[in-house]
Amino acid sequence: MYSEYRTKRKIEFTDTDMAGIVHFSRFFVFMETAEHEFLRSLGTSVATEWKGDKIGWPRRTASCEYHSPLRFEDEVDIHLWVSKKGTKSLTYQFLFTLEDKDIARGELTTVCCVTNPGEKIRAIPIPEFIASQIIPK
Amino acid sequence: MYSEYRTKRKIEFTDTDMAGIVHFSRFFVFMETAEHEFLRSLGTSVATEWKGDKIGWPRRTASCEYHSPLRFEDEVDIHLWVSKKGTKSLTYQFLFTLEDKDIARGELTTVCCVTNPGEKIRAIPIPEFIASQIIPK
Amino acid sequence: MYSEYRTKRKIEFTDTDMAGIVHFSRFFVFMETAEHEFLRSLGTSVATEWKGDKIGWPRRTASCEYHSPLRFEDEVDIHLWVSKKGTKSLTYQFLFTLEDKDIARGELTTVCCVTNPGEKIRAIPIPEFIASQIIPK
Amino acid sequence: MYSEYRTKRKIEFTDTDMAGIVHFSRFFVFMETAEHEFLRSLGTSVATEWKGDKIGWPRRTASCEYHSPLRFEDEVDIHLWVSKKGTKSLTYQFLFTLEDKDIARGELTTVCCVTNPGEKIRAIPIPEFIASQIIPK
Repeated sequence: MYSEYRTKRKIEFTDTDMAGIVHFSRFFVFMETAEHEFLRSLGTSVATEWKGDKIGWPRRTASCEYHSPLRFEDEVDIHLWVSKKGTKSLTYQFLFTLEDKDIARGELTTVCCVTNPGEKIRAIPIPEFIASQIIPK
Repeated sequence: MYSEYRTKRKIEFTDTDMAGIVHFSRFFVFMETAEHEFLRSLGTSVATEWKGDKIGWPRRTASCEYHSPLRFEDEVDIHLWVSKKGTKSLTYQFLFTLEDKDIARGELTTVCCVTNPGEKIRAIPIPEFIASQIIPK
Repeated sequence: MYSEYRTKRKIEFTDTDMAGIVHFSRFFVFMETAEHEFLRSLGTSVATEWKGDKIGWPRRTASCEYHSPLRFEDEVDIHLWVSKKGTKSLTYQFLFTLEDKDIARGELTTVCCVTNPGEKIRAIPIPEFIASQIIPK
Repeated sequence: MYSEYRTKRKIEFTDTDMAGIVHFSRFFVFMETAEHEFLRSLGTSVATEWKGDKIGWPRRTASCEYHSPLRFEDEVDIHLWVSKKGTKSLTYQFLFTLEDKDIARGELTTVCCVTNPGEKIRAIPIPEFIASQIIPK
């Protein structure tokens, strides 16, 4: 029973470029929005407060492999799971499919940080109420 | 001798959509970036500090008329001028041309505001060192 | 019984800017996506074929008035209606509200065009199966 | 004497997000635009014609490591070089620096393809006039 999340996204006109397909940079936005939905499903948010500090999740790495294009009005399935849980970081895997066709695979590594305005951003251990809910695959 | 500014912008792949032309929403980004260059040419910035307050210029209205499309790798000329100077607001006009062809005309009205974090945004008179430099057409 | 359409949109992280609010240019994307949903509700699409021609709806004008900001994770209500039906064009009004608070009002005028690749774009009368379904307010 | 290209980019307001820094997805746009400038420096373009076919360079993979944030009005240095030249593909490395501070490192692998409208996209050997100019590091 590992941590996963499934969502769908309808491709918008502005996601496309002159090649007639979804611009490759948009997949990173799609990954991030799925991650944020996943965090809300745990009762938290990518931008929250905890013990008086602002908590955020800056990205350390992001990558994507493109297998087949997406087009306007496609409704893509996005499957997210946590592949690694560090003390201070999480690694997510993303599988994009369209009617079972493999579209793309992505990965994000994010770091739990205190992001108080006027202070230097610093990594912290993932708060227990979040960490305890996450089981990597 | 009214306040004006001229700049150029090379169209990027990601500015285009599946119709093969620049997406209409991008013209608003192009206007804003020209406005920010204009403000820097006056020795200020759209996000600055003044007498201990953070100053910003939220948009009150934005509009654009589209006459002819822009395409990838076009280098569009952008001509900005101030058409109205209120006590607290500025109205800019924008003319987009490509080799003297009329591409689009736009307008932005922005309001000078104190934007301190944690405070409600409030309109203020344009600081004198900025207002004194601006002559509307 | 005029033509209208209501939808909602959850604000994404990438919709925001360093001012902590939704960037003003994003409202034009939100309007367009609502328009596209409306067209689908009529059984057509902003990019379709009709009698062997490709049909599209280039924008002639776009405008927006901003009354109150939107923030990350807000779920904004978007109300679209057709305010004018010309022979070849449609004018849409948009009202953005957040829990009954007036956020913004926008307008788009679009022109029905043949957009075959390799041909010059030309305006045409709105096809009857679309025009007959649209009642302006 | 390997193939490389250096460019600069001024951060725009719309590149930023509510964390006050450049959104991570924007780095992929910055990489792509640098790649397109590099291709123009070779006398070609990412979207061109060759022997009657349309030629494009779809992305196969994209990745980025983030070391330090970029902010509004920063002028980032982008250093591109080709790390691998396959028969049909190119791999680019990107180094982002700000006054010698390491900001990010990225990689793109692109595939030379015929992209004629109405035909299936197919990979082809890189045309000789391009391949002959490229020396991987």
